[in-house]
Amino acid sequence: MAVYTHLGAEQLEGLIAAYDVGALVSAKGIAEGVSNSNWLIETTGTRDERQRFILTLYEKRIDTNELPFFLGLLDHLAQRGCAVPATVHDRDGAAWREIAGKSAALIEFLPGVSPGKPTPAQARAVGAALAQIHLAARDFPLARCDDLDLAACTAMLASCGKERLAEIDPALAQTIEVAHAAAKHQPEGLPESIIHSDLFPDNVLMLGDRVTGLIDFYFACNGAMAYDLAVTHAAWCFDRNGAVLHGRLSNALLAGYESVRALQDDERAALPALAERACLRFLASRAEDWLETPSDVQVMRKDPMDFWRRLTVYREIGIDAFAKA
Amino acid sequence: MAVYTHLGAEQLEGLIAAYDVGALVSAKGIAEGVSNSNWLIETTGTRDERQRFILTLYEKRIDTNELPFFLGLLDHLAQRGCAVPATVHDRDGAAWREIAGKSAALIEFLPGVSPGKPTPAQARAVGAALAQIHLAARDFPLARCDDLDLAACTAMLASCGKERLAEIDPALAQTIEVAHAAAKHQPEGLPESIIHSDLFPDNVLMLGDRVTGLIDFYFACNGAMAYDLAVTHAAWCFDRNGAVLHGRLSNALLAGYESVRALQDDERAALPALAERACLRFLASRAEDWLETPSDVQVMRKDPMDFWRRLTVYREIGIDAFAKA
Repeated sequence: MAVYTHLGAEQLEGLIAAYDVGALVSAKGIAEGVSNSNWLIETTGTRDERQRFILTLYEKRIDTNELPFFLGLLDHLAQRGCAVPATVHDRDGAAWREIAGKSAALIEFLPGVSPGKPTPAQARAVGAALAQIHLAARDFPLARCDDLDLAACTAMLASCGKERLAEIDPALAQTIEVAHAAAKHQPEGLPESIIHSDLFPDNVLMLGDRVTGLIDFYFACNGAMAYDLAVTHAAWCFDRNGAVLHGRLSNALLAGYESVRALQDDERAALPALAERACLRFLASRAEDWLETPSDVQVMRKDPMDFWRRLTVYREIGIDAFAKA
Repeated sequence: MAVYTHLGAEQLEGLIAAYDVGALVSAKGIAEGVSNSNWLIETTGTRDERQRFILTLYEKRIDTNELPFFLGLLDHLAQRGCAVPATVHDRDGAAWREIAGKSAALIEFLPGVSPGKPTPAQARAVGAALAQIHLAARDFPLARCDDLDLAACTAMLASCGKERLAEIDPALAQTIEVAHAAAKHQPEGLPESIIHSDLFPDNVLMLGDRVTGLIDFYFACNGAMAYDLAVTHAAWCFDRNGAVLHGRLSNALLAGYESVRALQDDERAALPALAERACLRFLASRAEDWLETPSDVQVMRKDPMDFWRRLTVYREIGIDAFAKA
C-alpha cells in the first residue's frame, strides 16, 4: 500500500502526452496495490470534460511478459460489458509504455467505493458480476498458470516450518498436515475459465448495491470457476476475523452467481474442498508475510488466524456452509 | 506516506452526508501526508457536476487543539485570494468532525502537480506565492510556536549523539558543534508573520508555471518571513542531493518573492544564517528518522547528507548564495 517509485511532474506529463487524453491536470499517488505504484490521474480530457485514469507502474513482482495477459484480459472483459476498467492504449496502440525503466499502463477510472461491511444485496450483485466475468473470459485467448495452487501454498507453509507457524498461534502447528490432507480430496475436471482468484471486497467498487468495477486482476489465472466462487465466498461471507459465517450473505452470493451461471452438481459438491483450498492459500501467504515482517514496523500485517478460523468453519460444517437457508 | 486508518464505505458515506456536497461517488486513499491519512473523495456535487475533495484524518502527531489554527489559516488565506485549499465546513458550520475516534477535515481539492525539477519560471511563481501568504497571514488572529526552532533541532541532534551521527556519515560528527555555532549568529527582530516553513516542491501544486496550490501547512507557525524564504531557497534551488546550487533558480525565487514583498536590508543580510538554520532543521529530523528506521525496512529514508551538503554551501559562500547573477 504505497508508492514505490517517484515520478516527477515532467515525467508524468511526458507519459500522458503519449495518449490521446488531453493534458495532465493532477496526479496523486494512491495507497492501493500491494506490489505496484498507482496514481490517480486527471487530464483536461478530449471533449472539454476532465477525465480520470489510474496509472499503474509495475514494480518487481509483476513480470512484463505477463502484461499482455493482464491488460488484454481487462480489454476483453470490458468489451463484453463486464464491470472492469479498460486499458487505455497510447497513440501507437500500445497497452503499456516504459517509464523510469519500468512498465506503466493507463487504466480507466471507475467510480464506486469498496463495501466495508457487505450487505446481502451487495453480495448478490458481486456473485452475478463474478459469473459474468467467468462466462465472458471463456474465449480469452491467453493463459496463465495459478502461482498459488495448493501445492505452492503447501510448500510455502512447509518453508515457514511447524515451529514458526506455532509461534504465530499454537493452532497453526497443524496447518501443514491439514494442507496435505486437503490435497487428497481436491476435485478435478471442473469447468474452467479465467478466474479473478482474489475478489475481496477491497477489489470491488460499488455504488449502493450496484457493482461499478471489479479491479486488481493481478492474481487472475486459468482455473476452476467454482474455486473462484469459493474464494469469493471466504472473502465476503464471514465477519472480518473469520469466526462467524453469515448465512444470508452466503445465500445471496450463490444466488447472484447462479442468476447468471448455474453451477453443475459436481461444482456445488466441490465447494467445501475448494473453500478449504482458498483458506489455505490466504493462510499461507499471510503466515509468510507475518513471519517476514518485523513486528515493530508500522505496516499492517494481516492476521493468518482470520483464515484458520474460516478453514475450521468449512471443515466442520462442509456443504452446509453453502446450503440455502 | 500511507493510509493509517481503515475507513469503510459506510463510514465514509456517513461522514460525507454531514456536508452539503452531494453523495459519495469514489474514495481513494492517497499516499500523501507524513502523519495523516488522506483520501481523494469524489461526490455527486451540488450543481449536477461532480466535485472532488481531500479528506484528511488526523493521526496521533497532530493535536486536535491545533486544528483551529491549521484549518482556520487555510480559510483565512483562501479568503484573501491565496492559492491554498479552503476548508469545507459541515452543515452545522464545523471545520472538522469526529470519525473512528479521530478528527477529520474535508478540504478543497486543487488541480496541479508538484514539479520534480523546477524551472526558474516555476521558482519565481513560488516565491511570489510565498510572499502572498506572508502578507495575507499577518492579520490571522491565532498563533502557533515553531516546534522545530534551532534549539529544538540542536537538542534532537544531541540526543542522536555524535557517534551515531558519525555512523550515518563521518562528516556528521561536526553537526552538533555547527548547530551551537549557528545559534550564536542567528538574527533577531526580523519581521514576522505566519510561515509555512516546509515549502518543498512536493507541497506546491502547479499547472505549467502557475501555482495552483500551496498545501500541507501542518508545520505552519509564527516566525520570521525571511526564514521561510530561506527554507524555500534550500528546498527549491539545489539539485536533489544538495551539492549544486542553481543560481538561476535562486535569482528567480528571490525576484518572485520581492515582486510581491520587498525584503528589508536586515532580512537580506540574515539569509545565510537563516538558511543554515533551515538546513540544520531538515538535517536533524532526517538524522533522527534515519537512526530510528531499521535499514532493512522498505520505507523511503531521506538522506540527512542532502542537507549537510546544502549547509556546507551556505557556510562556504554566505550571502553569495543569494546574490543576483
